[in-house]
Amino acid sequence: MIKEAIFHKSDVPYAYPVNENQLKIVLRTAVFDVDRVYVLYKDRYDWMGKFKIKPMVLIHTNELFDYFETTLDLNKKFVYFFYLVSEGGEKLYYTEAGFYKKRPEDGFWGFFHYPYIGEKDVFFAPNWTSDCIVYQIFPERFNNGDKSNDPENVKPWGQKPTADSFFGGDLQGIIDKINYLKDLGINAIYLTPIFLSPSTHKYDTTDYYTIDPRFGDTQKARELVQKCHDNGIKVIFDAVFNHCGYDFFAFQDVIKNGEKSKYWDWFNIYEWPIKTHPKPSYEAFADTVWRMPKLMTKNPEVQKYLLEVAEYWIKEVDIDGWRLDVANEIDHHFWKKFREVVKTAKPEAIIVGEVWHDASPWLRGDEFDSVMNYPFRNAVVDFFAKRKISASRFNTLITEQLMRHMESVNRVMFNLIGSHDTERFLTLANGMVTRMKLALVFQFTFVGIPYIYYGDEVGMVGGNDPDCRRCMIWEEEKQNRSIFDFYKKLISIRKESEELKYGNFCTLYAIGMVFAFKREYKGKSIIVVLNNSSKQEVIFLNEVEGKEDILKMKELRRSGNLLYLQPNSAYILK
Amino acid sequence: MIKEAIFHKSDVPYAYPVNENQLKIVLRTAVFDVDRVYVLYKDRYDWMGKFKIKPMVLIHTNELFDYFETTLDLNKKFVYFFYLVSEGGEKLYYTEAGFYKKRPEDGFWGFFHYPYIGEKDVFFAPNWTSDCIVYQIFPERFNNGDKSNDPENVKPWGQKPTADSFFGGDLQGIIDKINYLKDLGINAIYLTPIFLSPSTHKYDTTDYYTIDPRFGDTQKARELVQKCHDNGIKVIFDAVFNHCGYDFFAFQDVIKNGEKSKYWDWFNIYEWPIKTHPKPSYEAFADTVWRMPKLMTKNPEVQKYLLEVAEYWIKEVDIDGWRLDVANEIDHHFWKKFREVVKTAKPEAIIVGEVWHDASPWLRGDEFDSVMNYPFRNAVVDFFAKRKISASRFNTLITEQLMRHMESVNRVMFNLIGSHDTERFLTLANGMVTRMKLALVFQFTFVGIPYIYYGDEVGMVGGNDPDCRRCMIWEEEKQNRSIFDFYKKLISIRKESEELKYGNFCTLYAIGMVFAFKREYKGKSIIVVLNNSSKQEVIFLNEVEGKEDILKMKELRRSGNLLYLQPNSAYILK
Repeated sequence: MIKEAIFHKSDVPYAYPVNENQLKIVLRTAVFDVDRVYVLYKDRYDWMGKFKIKPMVLIHTNELFDYFETTLDLNKKFVYFFYLVSEGGEKLYYTEAGFYKKRPEDGFWGFFHYPYIGEKDVFFAPNWTSDCIVYQIFPERFNNGDKSNDPENVKPWGQKPTADSFFGGDLQGIIDKINYLKDLGINAIYLTPIFLSPSTHKYDTTDYYTIDPRFGDTQKARELVQKCHDNGIKVIFDAVFNHCGYDFFAFQDVIKNGEKSKYWDWFNIYEWPIKTHPKPSYEAFADTVWRMPKLMTKNPEVQKYLLEVAEYWIKEVDIDGWRLDVANEIDHHFWKKFREVVKTAKPEAIIVGEVWHDASPWLRGDEFDSVMNYPFRNAVVDFFAKRKISASRFNTLITEQLMRHMESVNRVMFNLIGSHDTERFLTLANGMVTRMKLALVFQFTFVGIPYIYYGDEVGMVGGNDPDCRRCMIWEEEKQNRSIFDFYKKLISIRKESEELKYGNFCTLYAIGMVFAFKREYKGKSIIVVLNNSSKQEVIFLNEVEGKEDILKMKELRRSGNLLYLQPNSAYILK
Repeated sequence: MIKEAIFHKSDVPYAYPVNENQLKIVLRTAVFDVDRVYVLYKDRYDWMGKFKIKPMVLIHTNELFDYFETTLDLNKKFVYFFYLVSEGGEKLYYTEAGFYKKRPEDGFWGFFHYPYIGEKDVFFAPNWTSDCIVYQIFPERFNNGDKSNDPENVKPWGQKPTADSFFGGDLQGIIDKINYLKDLGINAIYLTPIFLSPSTHKYDTTDYYTIDPRFGDTQKARELVQKCHDNGIKVIFDAVFNHCGYDFFAFQDVIKNGEKSKYWDWFNIYEWPIKTHPKPSYEAFADTVWRMPKLMTKNPEVQKYLLEVAEYWIKEVDIDGWRLDVANEIDHHFWKKFREVVKTAKPEAIIVGEVWHDASPWLRGDEFDSVMNYPFRNAVVDFFAKRKISASRFNTLITEQLMRHMESVNRVMFNLIGSHDTERFLTLANGMVTRMKLALVFQFTFVGIPYIYYGDEVGMVGGNDPDCRRCMIWEEEKQNRSIFDFYKKLISIRKESEELKYGNFCTLYAIGMVFAFKREYKGKSIIVVLNNSSKQEVIFLNEVEGKEDILKMKELRRSGNLLYLQPNSAYILK
């Protein structure tokens, strides 16, 4: 056995409470390296009791590792434990103090401990997220519902956007399309920023308390949220707290009054007087974006200000959560306070951070509920759009990502394939619709919240910002209805399948460019098979007999457990 | 190369800021498995810049793993990076997305990121801890300075204690011994609880705002702290917040008023009416200790009450920190609030948790500064007192423990060899003073705060509680002065050696029962050699030439780098 690969730590994500009486534990080993894994456990204060023994279940296998898991039903809220791993005739006991050939006895000091499950430490995502499908809207480009609030020099809808071109999209435009969204089947929208700002994207906030008048006003925002709620749609706003806009009152006060401004320490000014060029003489977003001065969230006054903003919009217009811009560049200390404020104001509000890399430091249960899942996107782009990695590598990427987080976090990850900050998926796939469809099948059958970037559902294309922020195509004849219908079908399949919403995930096959997995829930299962190549493939899969393809993308020929997969095909076997 | 062993995660303890512009990073590999490790890194927003390359330094080697470390001097507060590991002709690039044979290029999505160093997220221990030596006092048994406040039926000083026998120790008794403590050389005392309680140990608090009158009063506590401060001694109190005593006002209110008590939800009552026997019908410490009802720290009223207590004693008598009883059974959520309150009241206060197992979940920088380091003690007991593990295994235990935490945490660990909750070390060593002395040499030359349990310094013995809580021996003729002098010598050596206080730690030799290591600081080094066996041993050590033994426990015979170690001997070569 490769001892160096065997790993457990009594902390997230290797040990965490599912509720006050159940503890999920995970053990990692090298791939195909052990036969069996058991956990031996007992109440910490049950001095006289015997250890119970429970087999661990293999949940993921990838290029390097096997992951074993079980959930301990605790009699009390505390437990200690150790592992028995065996391979052939070899037995090893694995403890917090390392490996032993002899079984550790009572009184041994090196057991793993989960000393107490505190109710406040159990992570729960908001209830409504369990069957959520989210739709991202870039308000300036989604729909112009009110011509009277159009910016000056508004460009004709559909013209190719530059960084500064306005097209007149607004909140009324979103309200007018609620039926469209409902018909599509989504049940949450995330709006990029809508507060007063000079830019098209509004990530440079002038006033956190004012809806940009070119989008509407507070009353209009309230109406939007209310009408969404009436239609079963949750609404998430964008909190841009890393930096403000150049015109933000506090920064303007510093510009005007210099060192004498009472807001001087809301920012990090390198030298006085302030200058913006050639480089800002103050800390700014991305180091050099002078229009976005970084806010010092270490300053209690800044904390207070931003936390009040967070609370205000929940109370004022009843939003259902915040997406946090550049969340990874704000201190953890602030986000912990933020969570307290938001969850106190609305326990069912969701908190979703923008973190492009491994987000586990923010997803321990005390900061965010979820993040924009870019590692998911990257794997999906590389496998489905670019076909530059194998199914085996893809499986490694997605299972490693799953094992970074608590299962309850994975279930609310915002699994995107594109956003306002990336090239559109269809563009990355060189316009090959089938590649996108395979990616969508994966996205809608995987663990986590499927995420639609406005327009992807009608086949919109676009390169990097600002090209990925084109005006929504509303004329049906210009839309790709095949993609639209495919989305609708996937949404309806997901909504009707408890396995896809609540089931566990288990890879069945990852060879060449063929990837298959199972989602299982309460004894029922769905098997998804993806042939991500241009060749016919024949594979043998247990458990598929008796299941029918509910996707019907391409005909499935089969003979018992032998499946003849057509080129570029996906099957959802139920 | 054993890929399965190679590990880094951009989070504590594998990546953490040392200050706002320096990031410590750690990479683990299998032992003796790689030749070289480099980190390639650049500013996250330096789009055009080239990666800098820096070799990583091997800092620990043990039975399974090598650990490599470096500190990145950042130009800005953000960085991304990846590793190059090589062995013979083989090269591997290690990234957040796994291993690559080809060097990842700009634009690759899988780099490790440390996205921003927030000032509030940099962990600093209190300044005064850097040369701290702490002394634990069990007040009832330390010294009786005021006969007038003696409990009834006080037993003669020195009689063997039972669980309930009182001997009259008090705060005046500690004040009277400040000169003794100063002479010994310690500069911090930690007192087990002194608040009103019926028991000898006072872990069942009746009133958190009242000093037990058998110990003194608030004025006496203030005097104690003031006089300690005048003599350069910090004072740490014991916060027993997991549970209160049976006589605590809120629990008594519940006893009296049952479900109608407004304090009913300060506790977890399983069924009404409350009963204490045969098992408590409420959640209690260690499941069954009815005299210690568990406090529901999830309840905001309980939080408020306890946090006010924490703040009160800091403000009222100017204590320098809190040791937290049963800290691992209180929710993390509470401790994060506790840290805010304590550090706001007194930024230089220390927070030390009682956690007997891997404490890393509490030592991420946002809860405790330190813990009672029982894993350290367990390793020291097994190696030095019982001689039941080898030097190699001992090295594994202590280096694995070091690698669980940030270096800044390791430096303030309370490295104890015994406490009021364990058998005394000398008893575990079967009275063999030499074994204890070798352990002490290690304790006082290792990374972290040396910790003396009252009486150990005069050779006190005692089995488990209550026997380890015997009355302090004050008559010099009954003290083991050899041990006392040894402590004094070690304390003075430590105080005079920057290497021991601030230096890094590197194992040089761990074969059989011989263990040697180096502490290095600013180019100067101290080498410690321990022959933990009853045989003479001969070892070859680089770097010892020119160094003299400053401990002078036994004569050191040497020939160049060849050392002839006497049986049961320790040498501190400076």
